[in-house]
Amino acid sequence: MTKNLPSQDYNLGAKASLSRQITEADILRMAEITGDYNPIHLDEEFAKRTRFKGRIAHGVFCAGLISAVLGTKLPGPGSVYLKQTLSFLFPVRPGDTLTAEVEVTSWQADKRIITLKTTCSNQNGKEVVSGESVLLVDKLP
Amino acid sequence: MTKNLPSQDYNLGAKASLSRQITEADILRMAEITGDYNPIHLDEEFAKRTRFKGRIAHGVFCAGLISAVLGTKLPGPGSVYLKQTLSFLFPVRPGDTLTAEVEVTSWQADKRIITLKTTCSNQNGKEVVSGESVLLVDKLP
Repeated sequence: MTKNLPSQDYNLGAKASLSRQITEADILRMAEITGDYNPIHLDEEFAKRTRFKGRIAHGVFCAGLISAVLGTKLPGPGSVYLKQTLSFLFPVRPGDTLTAEVEVTSWQADKRIITLKTTCSNQNGKEVVSGESVLLVDKLP
Repeated sequence: MTKNLPSQDYNLGAKASLSRQITEADILRMAEITGDYNPIHLDEEFAKRTRFKGRIAHGVFCAGLISAVLGTKLPGPGSVYLKQTLSFLFPVRPGDTLTAEVEVTSWQADKRIITLKTTCSNQNGKEVVSGESVLLVDKLP
């Protein structure tokens, strides 16, 4: 069976990251494609009455950015998402620039199961989401 | 302090759900707003070579739909997302109609912490994602 992608092993501590600014337009589009019209994301008057004192972005932006790093960089295309945990630590504001970073914490070569610590931070270095990912890294024919 | 929203308690077993079809356009827009251009979602030729034998939707659609139910229905606006776990059980295809359902499994009235079992199923009733959510339900002034 010929492989077009390398069947590499993964070193503990290996890292990858991706950054992205969350714009007002992104928040509206996220509401449209998920149906999440929670007023905390869209209604400034409502959001001002909450503990956040203003609108916040959907937490799913962090999940999406983490998934982007996993699926495009480490472990990369061909990996199969098995599990993700997310702890929401700090609010994400419209206009924030998020950086998702993943770090290999376990690699079971026999089962091809990889575990990574995942974090999402804002432009001030504040960690907004922490969690863990588990993926199966398929060998592609 | 006047309340505009009821400060209700939550019954164990209470449920809410939301359904949504994932279109081709949604998948492209999800890639654009999260940066997740993993070819498994966008490149049919690549996807055919994987165990899925064709393109699949971003797992984050399930996370988004679950978040939509939590933030708009149960516990609803004013709740603060603390944690989410996601197990990806079965692939979601472009065109699938997903139903996210949440069910209250724990309500700590003193701390106002609610825990819900969360599932996402496709139009055939197949469970594609399972998990658990933890939220803080703020009383809004």
